[in-house]
Parts: sequence; structure tokens; C-alpha cells
Amino acid sequence: MSGNSLGNLFRITTWGESHGPAIGVVIDGCPTGIKLNEKDIQKELDRRKPGKKLTTKRSEDDKVEILSGVFEGKTTGTPISLMVRNKDQKSKDYSKIKNKYRPSHADFTYDAKYGIRDYRGGGRASARETIGRVAAGAIAQKIIPKIKITAKLLSPDKKTIEAVRKAGDSVGGLIECTIKNIPAGLGSPVFEKLDAKLAGAMLSIPGTKGFEIGSGFKCVEMRGSEHNDEFITKNGKITTKTNHAGGILGGISSSTNIVFRVAFKPTASISKKQQTIDKKGTKKFIEIEGRHDPCIALRAIPIVKAMATLVIADEYLVQKSVKI
Amino acid sequence: MSGNSLGNLFRITTWGESHGPAIGVVIDGCPTGIKLNEKDIQKELDRRKPGKKLTTKRSEDDKVEILSGVFEGKTTGTPISLMVRNKDQKSKDYSKIKNKYRPSHADFTYDAKYGIRDYRGGGRASARETIGRVAAGAIAQKIIPKIKITAKLLSPDKKTIEAVRKAGDSVGGLIECTIKNIPAGLGSPVFEKLDAKLAGAMLSIPGTKGFEIGSGFKCVEMRGSEHNDEFITKNGKITTKTNHAGGILGGISSSTNIVFRVAFKPTASISKKQQTIDKKGTKKFIEIEGRHDPCIALRAIPIVKAMATLVIADEYLVQKSVKI
Amino acid sequence: MSGNSLGNLFRITTWGESHGPAIGVVIDGCPTGIKLNEKDIQKELDRRKPGKKLTTKRSEDDKVEILSGVFEGKTTGTPISLMVRNKDQKSKDYSKIKNKYRPSHADFTYDAKYGIRDYRGGGRASARETIGRVAAGAIAQKIIPKIKITAKLLSPDKKTIEAVRKAGDSVGGLIECTIKNIPAGLGSPVFEKLDAKLAGAMLSIPGTKGFEIGSGFKCVEMRGSEHNDEFITKNGKITTKTNHAGGILGGISSSTNIVFRVAFKPTASISKKQQTIDKKGTKKFIEIEGRHDPCIALRAIPIVKAMATLVIADEYLVQKSVKI
Amino acid sequence: MSGNSLGNLFRITTWGESHGPAIGVVIDGCPTGIKLNEKDIQKELDRRKPGKKLTTKRSEDDKVEILSGVFEGKTTGTPISLMVRNKDQKSKDYSKIKNKYRPSHADFTYDAKYGIRDYRGGGRASARETIGRVAAGAIAQKIIPKIKITAKLLSPDKKTIEAVRKAGDSVGGLIECTIKNIPAGLGSPVFEKLDAKLAGAMLSIPGTKGFEIGSGFKCVEMRGSEHNDEFITKNGKITTKTNHAGGILGGISSSTNIVFRVAFKPTASISKKQQTIDKKGTKKFIEIEGRHDPCIALRAIPIVKAMATLVIADEYLVQKSVKI
Repeated sequence: MSGNSLGNLFRITTWGESHGPAIGVVIDGCPTGIKLNEKDIQKELDRRKPGKKLTTKRSEDDKVEILSGVFEGKTTGTPISLMVRNKDQKSKDYSKIKNKYRPSHADFTYDAKYGIRDYRGGGRASARETIGRVAAGAIAQKIIPKIKITAKLLSPDKKTIEAVRKAGDSVGGLIECTIKNIPAGLGSPVFEKLDAKLAGAMLSIPGTKGFEIGSGFKCVEMRGSEHNDEFITKNGKITTKTNHAGGILGGISSSTNIVFRVAFKPTASISKKQQTIDKKGTKKFIEIEGRHDPCIALRAIPIVKAMATLVIADEYLVQKSVKI
Repeated sequence: MSGNSLGNLFRITTWGESHGPAIGVVIDGCPTGIKLNEKDIQKELDRRKPGKKLTTKRSEDDKVEILSGVFEGKTTGTPISLMVRNKDQKSKDYSKIKNKYRPSHADFTYDAKYGIRDYRGGGRASARETIGRVAAGAIAQKIIPKIKITAKLLSPDKKTIEAVRKAGDSVGGLIECTIKNIPAGLGSPVFEKLDAKLAGAMLSIPGTKGFEIGSGFKCVEMRGSEHNDEFITKNGKITTKTNHAGGILGGISSSTNIVFRVAFKPTASISKKQQTIDKKGTKKFIEIEGRHDPCIALRAIPIVKAMATLVIADEYLVQKSVKI
Repeated sequence: MSGNSLGNLFRITTWGESHGPAIGVVIDGCPTGIKLNEKDIQKELDRRKPGKKLTTKRSEDDKVEILSGVFEGKTTGTPISLMVRNKDQKSKDYSKIKNKYRPSHADFTYDAKYGIRDYRGGGRASARETIGRVAAGAIAQKIIPKIKITAKLLSPDKKTIEAVRKAGDSVGGLIECTIKNIPAGLGSPVFEKLDAKLAGAMLSIPGTKGFEIGSGFKCVEMRGSEHNDEFITKNGKITTKTNHAGGILGGISSSTNIVFRVAFKPTASISKKQQTIDKKGTKKFIEIEGRHDPCIALRAIPIVKAMATLVIADEYLVQKSVKI
Repeated sequence: MSGNSLGNLFRITTWGESHGPAIGVVIDGCPTGIKLNEKDIQKELDRRKPGKKLTTKRSEDDKVEILSGVFEGKTTGTPISLMVRNKDQKSKDYSKIKNKYRPSHADFTYDAKYGIRDYRGGGRASARETIGRVAAGAIAQKIIPKIKITAKLLSPDKKTIEAVRKAGDSVGGLIECTIKNIPAGLGSPVFEKLDAKLAGAMLSIPGTKGFEIGSGFKCVEMRGSEHNDEFITKNGKITTKTNHAGGILGGISSSTNIVFRVAFKPTASISKKQQTIDKKGTKKFIEIEGRHDPCIALRAIPIVKAMATLVIADEYLVQKSVKI
């Protein structure tokens, strides 16, 4: 209710700032008896970890610790608490920009909302906040083992990324997520429609500017006769000839593949000198030092996947209560 | 929690099927002492009412009745119950399609989810469900009288709509919504970011396929040096030179105008003969009779506005608890 | 979240004032395919209806209308909206007490909270508000047909009630509720323990002053060796020799009968002249005219039962998501 | 929604098992700018700590660590994560009772609900779970600095406690909580009435069997003319001559002191040999070794206080949205 929880039955609450002691997540409502160890989670975390080619050079271990909810290698139905210590806290890097509002960052709006702000490395608005989401997503996947969720970058190419990196600039990116083997019937009309929940989940990822499903924005130019997906039977299963719907009708999964895309803006932190203001409204110039991803979309791939998994797993559990 | 409620403090619960006895909404958490009568709500409802040129010819009164929560012309802080009777229930129209799945409609997925379905006129999946949203939106606006929320159609033009109507076809549309005079500080990171809530709210409207804010999907091709909005001071107020952010940074309003767009698919109900299947999976042809909007986007304008108003009013109330 | 909703998966939202146009409830999350008609609900409503011997003489039909969520005699999984029109609205009765605070009523606190109040017949604080609860309880029972929930008056006797009625006075009462055939495993530690939810539900009924389960307040004088219920096997089923626990251990049902008691204060409305103050704080005398129950506990029996049923049905649905 | 969260705006989520790596709580929705350090929280934790005379001899440091949400000594509005490491994990103590169901404990019901259970020291059902509640309560108090919440033991006396301790037995206890300087207007009818929330909160504490407010269970024998509290003006403030209501009318605080009592059962763990069954239903004898509180009520005092504080602080924040 206060913004840091997601889900109805499989419910996660994330916490932590970029340069505080730790980052973490509590998962409430995970079903019992699921095999789980730290390696399962670490594997997913490593995919979003900085330090890889093309991404930021900040080096951390990001070792996850399971603090509760698992006994003798299995989930017990009680809350699962996961924590990752922040090790590489170079707070001095950020003193210069303490009072300046970095363009396209949340510095100004956090000040406006809260009147106080942990200015070190973006604080709560840092992409490190997503560690908890990815960790929880790894567990959510175990609830729906047959459903296959994948995400990939549609744009930009590696050459562009390398070019903007060298230029001290950044570039946006487009991610497509596909959900296969999903049963028909998931999603809770009218406000928790599956596409509505996916859209909300995606726009909660730092740096997102858009969400579209199936035909997406192209649908605005299309005719109904062209856009409507005819129902057919294939291998004894109901599906559609085309998939402009993107696998969801009336907010409910149809068992056809769910396909959606998420737009990520260019990384806000760039090396180029920029004009801005300080807290007092005085004009200032700012140069953001340190390590920055040239393309946040690249690192967002496992986050998009994790958020989709969290949404699907939650609705999977909710659906158990619809028919008795 | 079961899908038909929206909002944390200003919380609405909608109910009703297209051809049931009535449609309605309960609003819990409306502040006290707000002047409210049925005319205030009726005015907004009339804007979404069918029977107008270019939209469906179904004629209804859609007279709203306030059943609770208002005393001597003012809200009392108790739940406000609003109801609109369904008068024009031509159930016979729908008997032919009882067992056939209309392409691009929710017939099949409702059957898959619930195992039972009110097949008359779309039932709960009908656009009539949005009456409650628009009615609640009219009340929400009274909580935030200074904030101006408008929506308009960016595409298609009237000529196109008229052409597809004559052809028994339909066309999609794009709506842009602008929110002016919004204070900085609204939105609840990290899962109830203002853009995340707006995206979720918009995708819960029937027929939507996409949401984008500010630069939207164009951001994927942009450079950071081009996309970053420089902070400036204008008339003693902090704002930005450009508005690629669309008025929200880190999920929190910046006081710059919020601008977002929503893509609506072409109306699923078209007069043209279509191929489909019935409940048993047998191949069938279907011709959808009766009155249909050639462009749902046209009637969705007040709905987009209402949903945005509901989100902003709720976050406005939540923000009161952030600083003590 | 704003106080008028109860339950997680089987979620009810009640609305309506005593002397407004109507009273009602919306039930979201009722499973599909359950046979339901107005008679099923009416039967329970008639049990709480005034006009019976020993209770208030206000005469109303209290005819319930199903406005949504039911099609061809079965629930569809969409919200069920129920409404009862208020017919007997003698508003003039209440003009005299418009500005006086009736002792032991909610007049003063509603004014303090909301700054405005529908003073006719208690408004939202009237016992009529419980109509929606009883109606919803009748539906909840259909989700758990094997579980038997009964409530009865432990004190006072009819003779006492008749005596206080004649004296223009009132008397308190004690209700005991028993839940039989309940499966082990219901309840959600740690904040939604079954006994915690029952306690919260009971104290939300107008006029309640206490809740105790199993040994209740007597436990404070008991020794552990005396209070502990030894586990035994009976007819191949695990149960306990004694039942000081009242059927719940660690917040979870044990399959032993759940037994709890609820204390109801004497009816606040009495004919005797009382001293009080008005809105300005001036000393006044008040005589409450009209029809009053001499013992609210008597009419509260079906309400206690309904609230228990709502809690159990909700936890029954939640439990479906615990094991996959 | 899954049982381990409490509160609407000031929302806590607790996690952790008695003998797992740690115990903790995440607090979401704490207002910004509140001075907070670990000492503030530690002070309250030390009050519930074992190792004191008359209570269990288990010795732990229970040092709390603030992991997020506080910057430069003040709350930032982001989630506050608190953790206490479990140091004294003598798991071997519990191997003997792995398969036996301890009378009056939650062993059997946790098995029934979850099918799996951390049997070491009660796992999640241990009183150690309340560490997070007490820690969060210390923060909640800072939101309502003028409101004074105290709790004390009404029964039993120290002599009785010492006697049962020597006898290897245990005894129940009664705690009374008083809330002074509370403003009128807190509480959210009809399901989140202040007394309903307090009752639910109290019954969620391990070992509770009853809750009563004001006159409590005595009200069942009283007459209305005797029970009704006459309104008076005292020092220019509206209050009542008597306080049978216990400070709450219609679920809303009246500004008169809130007074309620909570019944605690005798400690379930006693040294005396008891009869029980094992997982297979076979009759067994059990002797519970180790350190046990002879009276849990004694240690529950700070927990009752903390739970009351959490409820009041939450409703205090909610009330800010009622009047605009």
C-alpha cells in the first residue's frame, strides 16, 4: 500500500538504497515444499550484475543470503527474506553532486516528495533496487515451472552501444518479452487484467517510457477486419491464426503466446557536461563522474523477465481460488 | 484484491454486466465535505454515452443514482454508492452468438477463466463496465480541483471513422492525455510509481494495446545527451527545458506537465463475416449484428481522463501521509 | 483499505446509511458456478430483520435484489452486487437529536472524524449497516458447505429482556459461536491468524466490547499443566482431549471445533431521560423516542454467524494457494 | 495479503524463524524526516529480551541493525529494514521433539497447513517473531509523540510466577493497555474500526485468548442506563463522566482514554511430562527440556504496547486523508 510491495498472493516487498548497508526483499505467500537454495537465486542475480562487457564497471559480489522461509532446502510457506550486502560504497564519488539535480534522474522529485534524500548513487532510485525483484523472480519461476518466460533486446545493436560509450553518451533500447506455455484463464478483470498488471510492473522498472502488447501502437492505424485474430483449433487446442492480441483478451490469457515490448530511455548518467540547477534554483553545470552503463536496456533484460514472472506467478495462485 | 477495486485511499470497486439489472461503483475513502450531486456525475457520464454521431446507436438514459455517502449535498466520508440501471436489454440479439467465440472479444477467455459467462452483450467485459469509472472520476476531480486533466484523440480523423463505419469495419485510435498544474511529489516508488499506476490504469481500459509517456517508444533511438531534460528555473519555479520525461522522474511527478498516450485497437465487433470456432472447437462463421462503434477510441476519451483522475487523486491523498 | 472492505480473496465492500436510499454490499472474488438466488440470501436477512417479538418494532421488507454477478442462477466469478432499499425512512423522528450527542452512540465521534454526519437514525453507524454483511455471509456459506457455523445467546434470558423493555431500559448479552467440521490448516500467521481475523471481525460489529476464544479470560488464572490440550487420536483423526485452545493453535485451525464468545453492550438507545451535551458543548437532556431493541445481542446472532462465515470462507480460498 | 503484513499506510512486514539466521521487519510508509537511530529501537527490544529474572534464561544480544531507509540520522520515506541476527541457535535441543506434537503449541497446525515445518524452537510460531513488531513499534511511537501508550500486568503476581517456575509449570496473565492524549477521530468504520483493529492486532500476539475494551465482558450483565457514558465538558474539552466505552464509540476514538485488556494463556512449554501423539498418530510422552518463561504475559507487555502503537500510528496517518 505504501509503494514497495507487489502482488496479491505471491507478494514481494523490496527495500534498500544503493549505498546503504544492504539491499533486499521479503517474499510473502510463496507456496510450501519448493526446493530452493542460494545458487538458484544467485544464478539470476549474476545475469543483472555489473562488471560485464558493455555494462558499468562497478564491481560487486552481490552474494545473496537466504535469511528465512527455507528449511532443509525447501520453502516452508513462511516469509522468505533475501539480502545482498552493498560492498563497494564509494560515497565520496557523490559529494560533488549532493546539491545539484542531475538531469533525467530522480534527485529533484525525491527531494520534492520526501524533503530529504540519500544522494549517494541514486539511493532508492538506483537500479540496484531491482536486485530484490530479480531474486524474487527466480523463486516465482519455480511456482510455474512449465511456463517459459524470455526477454531479449530488439534494439540497439552492440556497435551502437560501443560507439555511445566511447562518446561518453548513452542510448535507449527496446526489449521484447515472450511468455510461452501459459494456460488460458490468468488475469483478474477489471483492474488487475493481466496486461494491466504487466504494464504496471514494467513501468515500475527504472528508465521505462512505454509498454505495448501484441500489435501495440501499430493497432491505431489498423482496421478491425485486419486486426481481429480468428480463432482456430490446432493440435486439438484452441488458438488464433494471428496474434495481434499478444496472448491476452479481456485481460485474461488465452494460452496463445504473450508478447509485449518495453521501451527504455538512454541512461541518464552521461559523462558529457550538462546544464542544470542546484537546490536553491541556481544555474549550475554538472559532469557526472564514474562508471555508467551506456545502455540500461542491456542490463534490464533479466529485470523485465523477473517482473513478468512475478506477475504471472501471482495470477497463477489467484486463479486457484476462482473455481471450487 | 480480486480485481475489481482500484486505489489505496480513494478506492473504487466497480460491478455490473452489460445486460444485467444495473451497473455501478462504490467509492470508499472520499474525503468529507465535498459538494456533490447527481448532476456533477451525470455530466461526465453523458460524455461517454452512446447515441451520439459517429458512435454506437444504442440509446440509454444512463441516469446515475447516488445511493449513499452524500448528505445534504455534501460527502460524509462514508462509502459513496452509485448505480445506473440498464434499460435497453435486448437479450435476444445475443442468442445467436451464445456458443461462438467472437474474434478479438473476451468470450473465449472468460469461459476459460470462469467456466461460465454472461454472454449477453459482452457481460462484464462490455465497455458499459466503464460507467462506474467515469462516475468515480467525476468525484475524484473534486479532490484535486486545481489539477487540469484533458484527453484528446490524436488519430484517426472523422473522415476515416465515417468510411470504416460505412464499410462495416472499424479502426484503431490514439489518445493523448495531459495533466497540468500538478504539484511535484506525487507517486509512490517503487511499485506504485506514478507512471506505473497510470500505465496499469490505462491498460485496464477495454481495447488498449499500449501506453507511453513523454518521449515514449521514440526514446529507444535517442541519445542520452539528447533525451535528458535540463533543469531550469522559470517564473521562480523549477521545471525543465524539454519534456522527454513526460512530467515524471523516478516515478514521481516533477510539476512539469504529464503527457502520455494510449493506443486503442479497432473495435472488435464488425459487421463483416468472420471465421471462428464454437465452444466445441468446431469451425463456424460469425456475423455480428447490431450497433457497434466504428472507433472505440472516440468513446474512450472520457474514460482515459477518468482513469488518470482516479490515479492522481489517490496519490494526492497518499502524499498527505508522507510528511508529518 | 479505507475501512469498508473485508477479506482478501472473498472480499466484501459494504455501503449505505440507515435513512439513505438504500443499503448494500459488493462481493468480489466469489468463485464461479455456485447456485445462488435471492431467496438464499433473503432467508438469512429475515433472521436479522426487525419486527419480531422482543426486538425493535420498525417494520421493513428488506427485500434484497441481486444486481450483478449471477447469470442463469449461478455465480459467474464477477462482482456480486446486492441492494436493499430503505423504505421506512421517518426522518422527522431524528430532527430533535440533530445537534445532541446521544450517550454511547457514535454521534460525537463521527462529527469528530468527518466534520459532517447523517444524523438520521445513526446513519452509517446504524445496525442496518450489517444487512450487507449478513447477505454476503449467506453466499460465503455456499463456498464451505460442509462447515457448520452456529451462534446462540448465552445470556440474558427472555424474562430479563422483557423486563428491561418495559422499564425503557436495555441489557447486554453474550453470544457463543461454534464452528464444526472445519479442516485443519486455515489461518494465515502472523497477522492474519484465524483467531486474530475472527476477533477483528467480531469487534467490527456494532455494540461489541469483547472477544474470547476457548478458555478465554479464564486462562489467566490457569496453570499450563491444566490448560494444555493433550493430542489424541479419535476415529483415526487427530484431535485433543480438552479444547481450551478453542480450535485454533498458532493462528491455524486444528480441525477441533472452534468456539468463541462475543460480548455485546446494552442497547445505547433507551427511553429514559439522559444527560448529555450538544455540538457546542452545552449541557442538555435527551430522551430518545421511537423503537429500540432492548437487547442488541438478540439481533446480533445472525451477524456473528455471518462474520465468522466470511472469515472462514476467505481463509478457505487463501489456503488453496499454499500448496501447489 | 499473505499474512505477514500489518497496516495500511504505516505498513510492516515481519519475517524470520526462531532458529534461522535472522529475524526482521520491513516498515513501508514511515513519514520522512523523523530522527531515528539504532539506540531508539534497541531500548524497546531490550524490554522484551529474555535473560531477565522471572523470564526464560536464553541469552542473546538481539542487536538490531538498520539496513535501509535512514540517512544521516533521519528517515527518508523509503522502506526501513531492520534485522536481528539469531545467535544462540542450539538446534540439538529440538531434535527429540521433531516428530512429536507439543500440546498447546502450533507444531500440529503448521504441519497441517504447510506440510513442512522448521521444528527448531517453534520456528515462525516462536515468540521471537515479535522482535520485528517491537522494533517497528518503537518507530511508530515517533509519529505520534504526544500519544502515551502504556501496558501493565494486572495478574498474576510475582509470587505465583516464582511458584509455578519452581514447579516446572506455568501460569496465564492479564495485561491492561491504556492510551492517553489520543485525539478524537481515529479509526475507520466499518471493518477497520479502531477497536476492531486493536482486537485483531492483540489476538495476533502468540498466546492470546481474549480481548476486551472498556466495560468488556462485564457489559453483558449491565443495563443501558448504567452502561451509557454521559457526555460532559471538562476543561473546555468534550469527554464522558464514566468510560464504559473504553475510549472508542462507533469504532472511532473519542479522545477519552482508551483502555483495553488482553488475556494470555499459560506458557505452553512446561517441564512436566505430558501425553501427546507423533506425526503418525502414535501415542507418545513428551518432556520439554530447556529454558521456558513461566508466564508469557510478563514478556508480552512491550509487545502489547508495540501492537497498539502500530495500530494508532497507522490510523493517525490514514486520518490525514479524510479531510482536505
